[in-house]
Amino acid sequence: MENRYVPLIRLVGPDHVRADEATRHAYGADALKRGHPADVVVLPGTTEEIAAIARWCHDTRTPLVPRGGGTGYTGGAVPVRGGVVLSLERLNRILEIDEGNLLAVVEPNVITGDLQDAVERVGLFYPPDPASLRTSVIGGNVAENAGGPRAFKYGVTRQYVLGVEAVLPTGEIVRTGGKVVKNVVGYDVTQLLVGSEGTLAILTKIILRLIPRPPVQATLRATFRSVTDAVDAVTRLIRARVVPAALELVDGECLDAVANYLAVRSLAPAGTAALLLLEVDGLPELVAAEAARVEQACLDAGATEILRARDEAERAELWRVRRELSLSLKMITPIKFNHDVVVPKARVPELFALVDRLKREFALTIPCFGHVGDGNIHVNIMVRAGDEDEARRAHVAERALFEGVVALEGSISGEHGIGFAKAPYLGLELSPETIALMKRLKDAFDPHGILNPGKIFLS
Amino acid sequence: MENRYVPLIRLVGPDHVRADEATRHAYGADALKRGHPADVVVLPGTTEEIAAIARWCHDTRTPLVPRGGGTGYTGGAVPVRGGVVLSLERLNRILEIDEGNLLAVVEPNVITGDLQDAVERVGLFYPPDPASLRTSVIGGNVAENAGGPRAFKYGVTRQYVLGVEAVLPTGEIVRTGGKVVKNVVGYDVTQLLVGSEGTLAILTKIILRLIPRPPVQATLRATFRSVTDAVDAVTRLIRARVVPAALELVDGECLDAVANYLAVRSLAPAGTAALLLLEVDGLPELVAAEAARVEQACLDAGATEILRARDEAERAELWRVRRELSLSLKMITPIKFNHDVVVPKARVPELFALVDRLKREFALTIPCFGHVGDGNIHVNIMVRAGDEDEARRAHVAERALFEGVVALEGSISGEHGIGFAKAPYLGLELSPETIALMKRLKDAFDPHGILNPGKIFLS
Repeated sequence: MENRYVPLIRLVGPDHVRADEATRHAYGADALKRGHPADVVVLPGTTEEIAAIARWCHDTRTPLVPRGGGTGYTGGAVPVRGGVVLSLERLNRILEIDEGNLLAVVEPNVITGDLQDAVERVGLFYPPDPASLRTSVIGGNVAENAGGPRAFKYGVTRQYVLGVEAVLPTGEIVRTGGKVVKNVVGYDVTQLLVGSEGTLAILTKIILRLIPRPPVQATLRATFRSVTDAVDAVTRLIRARVVPAALELVDGECLDAVANYLAVRSLAPAGTAALLLLEVDGLPELVAAEAARVEQACLDAGATEILRARDEAERAELWRVRRELSLSLKMITPIKFNHDVVVPKARVPELFALVDRLKREFALTIPCFGHVGDGNIHVNIMVRAGDEDEARRAHVAERALFEGVVALEGSISGEHGIGFAKAPYLGLELSPETIALMKRLKDAFDPHGILNPGKIFLS
Repeated sequence: MENRYVPLIRLVGPDHVRADEATRHAYGADALKRGHPADVVVLPGTTEEIAAIARWCHDTRTPLVPRGGGTGYTGGAVPVRGGVVLSLERLNRILEIDEGNLLAVVEPNVITGDLQDAVERVGLFYPPDPASLRTSVIGGNVAENAGGPRAFKYGVTRQYVLGVEAVLPTGEIVRTGGKVVKNVVGYDVTQLLVGSEGTLAILTKIILRLIPRPPVQATLRATFRSVTDAVDAVTRLIRARVVPAALELVDGECLDAVANYLAVRSLAPAGTAALLLLEVDGLPELVAAEAARVEQACLDAGATEILRARDEAERAELWRVRRELSLSLKMITPIKFNHDVVVPKARVPELFALVDRLKREFALTIPCFGHVGDGNIHVNIMVRAGDEDEARRAHVAERALFEGVVALEGSISGEHGIGFAKAPYLGLELSPETIALMKRLKDAFDPHGILNPGKIFLS
């Protein structure tokens, strides 16, 4: 360990400061797989220790990078300029589940799925369900404003954050929001911290809104000859006043990948270009009414097949294609440029037309799936290991994708954030004035730019 | 008109600059009824004109106060330091209602009720429904993050704002968010502007999320012997997985006031301490199921009477008590300290116990009503005109109310904001560190403090 980091031992104790090679590298990478080693890793146990570390980093102008589950796709937890990685892994307790007030108070490193299980045991529900929910943590979900399939009905993480305790880069401890669902006292710093990618403050406590757990659900699968037909089904079911709890689209290329991986001939009728997974939930009377309307909407839009799960086993079977997707795509090639673009939902067919054009123009394999009710589609540009020309074409296609999405009145990221991976593209979506304003906000929190430097903004 | 304001004529034309005594006073007051005259009132017609006015005010260090409907309760639109009042009344068009993408694009001065009517005509729904919806405007609703009865099920204004165009106090024009429901690109400036009370930027265009209009609804009224019983009914119906679209509580003192005003003996069974107005909406099957569960929950909690509207006329009759409330309270005395405190919902009985204590201790009349599902209660401290001792006691009770609410883990404002009326109490709820951070955010937008000065913060 460099001598300059020795004072950290006094702040958190020798057991909680690590600078061995393996730890520095392990805590220097996330799911983006483009890591940079930390100089040192600290594992504080309390808010006060975190405040002391922040003050020390502030005084010594040392980069400080907070880290939760390390599951981000854009490098948000990577210490691109070295310095201190502050792992929140010891702050992992559910402090309170308040049934009367429908809220939970948690430390940042509670695994999202564990919180869901805990609240469901008492009849409550925490809806946000990023694909990573068994490995990602609430603090990271809040920092990235995580979404997931249920966002169409239930909203994203932002809608469930009532308040936080946070340590500023200056070492001050602030508490924003609270245990009430309405609060208009001063600026909404809570909502500003949600989605700020660990660049404004370190979350040390989070108050989350819960809702009653929907008692029953129904799962349906419908297949279509075109993405346009599938989107037409979505439009029809919204017109029929149905609000599905999940509304997932899987394209033909993804279906082929899963069929290959599972070594089955096909998962859907021949000629399927789009598969919709639909779930409705709520009171039994509502679920029956909505499921019937979903079937009708899919029929009217020209569905080639509609399946409805009769029990939990059939439900799992319907979701299998979605669950096996990630591993199936890895069989094509382990490297993918994994994007999470979003467009106004009626423009999803135009987004698929754009992707088709990119496939042809750049000779690329680009399977797509996603949350079609939100217009939020995961576009996976596959790159074979060692194929440098393909990697080059993929990079050109990536920029063309982002430009096309912005032209469709969309956004280059609906779930993963900017981190450092997408920082070069920020200017495609935001004007210089808006970026300048955001940098002034950053300065208001972090005058010396020590907290998670090199993220969101290029400079 | 003072000479120094003459350059404004060049920016917006002579017809749109006014400095006559009547206009200066009319545009210097809002529903708080503690006005201060503007030096001059400008009525720009475009975003570019607004940017030019902001630049001029910035360069000349002149206070600039944006104004929408002028219906705020905390003086948010009052030019407490004089200067320029910028009325947005000419920016009053609905620019777009996009049925396919479930959104609307509006200028800030569209009356909220007019927007609701327009979207309902095409089968859509804009849920936020502040009591002022026939006179307040969307821009003001966004600036104050307006709530209303439907917030329990549908959320407040914040949940419907997807993006804005805004003019910064420096005259720069920024566009934040957009037409997509998920967006994690950079900091969420949109959400920071919601509820910022016209102190950070002037909204010139707003993109709002819409939802499909619920096809049917049912309205119920239940009466209880105590507030505790009424809150018990709310807890029971939440446990029964019902999510009412309205969940309004009216206390016994309010009922007496309405009965007096309408000159009827009583509106509810003798001994009624709390009346609940409940509405459920959605698909017909859901509404039938939820209404039955609401009745059962109220019965189980000891309701003394439960009424259910069979048609629109009966529905209007049930809502009459709520509708006549404001005028009825004015008959007691035209002066009221009209507060909108909020506590965690299970603590509403403790809030009422606190109010009872204040009534006794300070010999005051304090009728209460509000959005009990959100724990958001309107506490009206009545003050007879000319009774200076009562006014003094009311001020002491007001501070005791705010202190008590904070002790109950609540917030001093759930709907009306801080403005200048509540600025002296900000420190009861927020720490010096949090207030200092908020002031740095203000500086990041408004380095010379020209935009709506004297609001939120005391200095």
